[in-house]
Amino acid sequence: MASRLLRNSYTGSLRAASTAASTTVRPAAVSAVHQFSARRQFSASTSKMASSFYDNWEPEGPTVKTEIPGPKAKEAIKELHEVFDTRSLNMLTDYQKSVGNYIADPDGNVLLDVYAQIASIPIGYNNPVLHDAALSSAMVNGIINRPALGNFPPTDWASTLKTGILKVAPKGLDQVFTAMAGSDANETAYKAAFMWRRQKERGGAHVDFTVEEMESAMVNQVPAGSKPLSILSFKTGFHGRLFGSLSTTRSKPIHKLDIPAFDWPQATFPALKYPLEQHAEENAAAEKAALDEVEHLITSYHVPPAAVVVEPIQSEGGDNHASPAFFRGLRAITRKHDVLLIVDEVQTGVGATGKFWAHDHWDLQDPPDMVTFSKKAQTAGYYFGNPELRPNKPYRQFNTWMGDPARALLFKAIIGEIERLGLVEHTAKVGDYLYGKLEALGEKYPGQFANLRGKGQGTFIAFDNPRRDEFLARAKKFGVNIGGSGQSAVRLRPMLIFQEKHADILVDALEKVVKSFK
Amino acid sequence: MASRLLRNSYTGSLRAASTAASTTVRPAAVSAVHQFSARRQFSASTSKMASSFYDNWEPEGPTVKTEIPGPKAKEAIKELHEVFDTRSLNMLTDYQKSVGNYIADPDGNVLLDVYAQIASIPIGYNNPVLHDAALSSAMVNGIINRPALGNFPPTDWASTLKTGILKVAPKGLDQVFTAMAGSDANETAYKAAFMWRRQKERGGAHVDFTVEEMESAMVNQVPAGSKPLSILSFKTGFHGRLFGSLSTTRSKPIHKLDIPAFDWPQATFPALKYPLEQHAEENAAAEKAALDEVEHLITSYHVPPAAVVVEPIQSEGGDNHASPAFFRGLRAITRKHDVLLIVDEVQTGVGATGKFWAHDHWDLQDPPDMVTFSKKAQTAGYYFGNPELRPNKPYRQFNTWMGDPARALLFKAIIGEIERLGLVEHTAKVGDYLYGKLEALGEKYPGQFANLRGKGQGTFIAFDNPRRDEFLARAKKFGVNIGGSGQSAVRLRPMLIFQEKHADILVDALEKVVKSFK
Repeated sequence: MASRLLRNSYTGSLRAASTAASTTVRPAAVSAVHQFSARRQFSASTSKMASSFYDNWEPEGPTVKTEIPGPKAKEAIKELHEVFDTRSLNMLTDYQKSVGNYIADPDGNVLLDVYAQIASIPIGYNNPVLHDAALSSAMVNGIINRPALGNFPPTDWASTLKTGILKVAPKGLDQVFTAMAGSDANETAYKAAFMWRRQKERGGAHVDFTVEEMESAMVNQVPAGSKPLSILSFKTGFHGRLFGSLSTTRSKPIHKLDIPAFDWPQATFPALKYPLEQHAEENAAAEKAALDEVEHLITSYHVPPAAVVVEPIQSEGGDNHASPAFFRGLRAITRKHDVLLIVDEVQTGVGATGKFWAHDHWDLQDPPDMVTFSKKAQTAGYYFGNPELRPNKPYRQFNTWMGDPARALLFKAIIGEIERLGLVEHTAKVGDYLYGKLEALGEKYPGQFANLRGKGQGTFIAFDNPRRDEFLARAKKFGVNIGGSGQSAVRLRPMLIFQEKHADILVDALEKVVKSFK
Repeated sequence: MASRLLRNSYTGSLRAASTAASTTVRPAAVSAVHQFSARRQFSASTSKMASSFYDNWEPEGPTVKTEIPGPKAKEAIKELHEVFDTRSLNMLTDYQKSVGNYIADPDGNVLLDVYAQIASIPIGYNNPVLHDAALSSAMVNGIINRPALGNFPPTDWASTLKTGILKVAPKGLDQVFTAMAGSDANETAYKAAFMWRRQKERGGAHVDFTVEEMESAMVNQVPAGSKPLSILSFKTGFHGRLFGSLSTTRSKPIHKLDIPAFDWPQATFPALKYPLEQHAEENAAAEKAALDEVEHLITSYHVPPAAVVVEPIQSEGGDNHASPAFFRGLRAITRKHDVLLIVDEVQTGVGATGKFWAHDHWDLQDPPDMVTFSKKAQTAGYYFGNPELRPNKPYRQFNTWMGDPARALLFKAIIGEIERLGLVEHTAKVGDYLYGKLEALGEKYPGQFANLRGKGQGTFIAFDNPRRDEFLARAKKFGVNIGGSGQSAVRLRPMLIFQEKHADILVDALEKVVKSFK
């Protein structure tokens, strides 16, 4: 009842936003695209979405009324900057007016958003299903009675996990350690790896720590005669920005300058050439060389790795892909040398690649040891299966909050909606559609959509543009909010409710950007 | 309207919980204590609370129906353990039935909670004011549209900060970097310290990074000829459990074993003797020796400190106090050597010591450089004032979420309630009352309430007991949930709505525990 009441006023504000948009002159081409899109046959998944509210809740297209930032945003940014660093600000956002795939600002600009809060909004702004979930008594309880989950878990915590986070656990992994964000999800996974490795060296879970081990730990050292351990990561990889995760992050100097880091090894990530079919042999050679380097580092680095961490697609580093065969090889090498494999699915997870987990594309017979998640899950942690990855004593892997039941409930609601609407399969199809259109655009404008990548990977698509930063800035003028990554990549990170009609609007805007460069 | 509807059903459930409690036979002494308490004159702050709902919403006292865990809890723990490590579980909790200062479990046990989710529940379970805040449209918006705050802050983010987090900013600090929990609040503060220090070495914000600096950062090294830097922390201190924060944590081996740590220095925290007035000279000497050691480490450690981090009261480490003079001395030494002072108020902040920030007790003329917060704030981050602590370029201090507006709104509501009811002053008074009663108890049972500490520090009180772990376990039988810390400390961490009547119940239960030892 209560939530229905609030929903009414919410629908009212949606309507207001939509009216505001429709009274604004939109680029003619966008309207044309929309009419074209409306004539298309609905695919199965599209019709599932059409049968719900998803086809009626959004504005029909973007509205650009002012420069971005406009006068109202400029004033607010100035005020904000006094107390909060705004130099990385991209767009001041009016979240009350943002709807579905559209992000709004205080000056009345409404952009198609294919950046989605750095790839982390899963099923649209102001999604009514999440709105209801937010008003549920369970959610309210999670907000106002935040538990120390390791000490005082809620009576229904098992059920929350089993019907939520664990319902979508990667194959072979049936347990979870919950965390707050991607960086601490990775760091707690690293901690589990170190404890697991030392336990093996010690001879098992039953072997107690020596006095020397305890004393050396208290002075931040390893016991005399023992070697320090490391986590091996890949060049241009990104795993977070706290001290342990940043030691495995190798994306850009600006992330790492002046911050102390561990002496941990890095391997080369294969630099694939595009189009893939024209460079099959070179690419296979690059992947083999990378795997050889990994094996060499595992067996010879002076700080031996307890684990290798890898992203299925290096996202912050520029959307660098490798083949399923590469990852199967990585699994085989790590298994061979008894080194753990941690797959960082913080950005790739939860459906955007057309599979729920990007590593589902690899067809692994032997699952990763740990898989970390965050972003579109709206909560974080690492999955694991091997019971030996539970440290041998309580309080070794522990902190006050250890996650957030409120955010876990939100993920549960997100999963429900993904399943109800088949959004993973939907995203696979829409991704194919979008990829085809971008391929055509690339042929029309040589060099402007270079190294198009992400075929068969849902909407997790990227390309390089020689004037990337200007490209992103101009895209806003044509009604689209897009992010970059690496040195020159334009990365598309639409939500899971992104449809072919949105792809049409996006492609239309991208073409305008390129035309404006001439 | 909507929230009022939900409030009705909420009040109903409160009533149900309270009825359940009153139909249970409670220890006679508890009832007697309650009557005694009811006869007392209300102090000004107590009457403020009495005039609100705070006097009527809770059960009259604890109810212990079964062993803890009871049969229902045991079953649920077994199920939970299959997917989530429960070895550090203290008490499975029914958060729907927990009210105010009372924590409930699925077997109908209702305990007075002076542990409060490891010192992090500020104004009671199921506080109706927070309940309303959770149902506000701003909160719902924050939950379902989680922003990447560094890139896409909400239009009203400045206002949320100024009327919330920054409204209670420590004196001299007017800016904030928001975070997710205590550990990343500390680690981002450390990062700010390292960047600040290197910037000074470089000659200022305008000096660009050299190629060598960028290249060495990418291989986790400092440039040739440059020394690595450190954070100096204190023995038995606790600052979190991620890799950087754990490198400064020196509480117990179980927190640190097998986890790689940086070669950073630790100084001795003065071990004060109690009662303080009988050991004034020795204690002053211990503090002087500690300060000398800090200065020696700052000037001579082979990995020079960019900052010193310290807790106003070492909490996890066993409630170790030092005098205001010690902290003023620490500020003077760090200032003298141009080393930053980071005050970790994760556990001490937000009122429990009878001041909003524990370092308000120090009467500093020169404020700390950064103050970190979490726990009772229900959100986290670090305050700072010096504009040079903003790194010289954007994206140096950055991550996807950079905090959580929903939790920031909750803190704002908490602050509102703290101010409305004068809960900081209230806690100072109730703390004095509780301390007096414990002092009397200590005289009656020599050795059982050893090293009683926290006089004049609100309810942030602790004592040592020779059978501490058993003491905590037995306290549950007598209706009280209490936490320990360090080797032998019983630490009291009541909420800010803890009143004299609760102190009476607590003291009564503590006496029963001690009697049961005979």
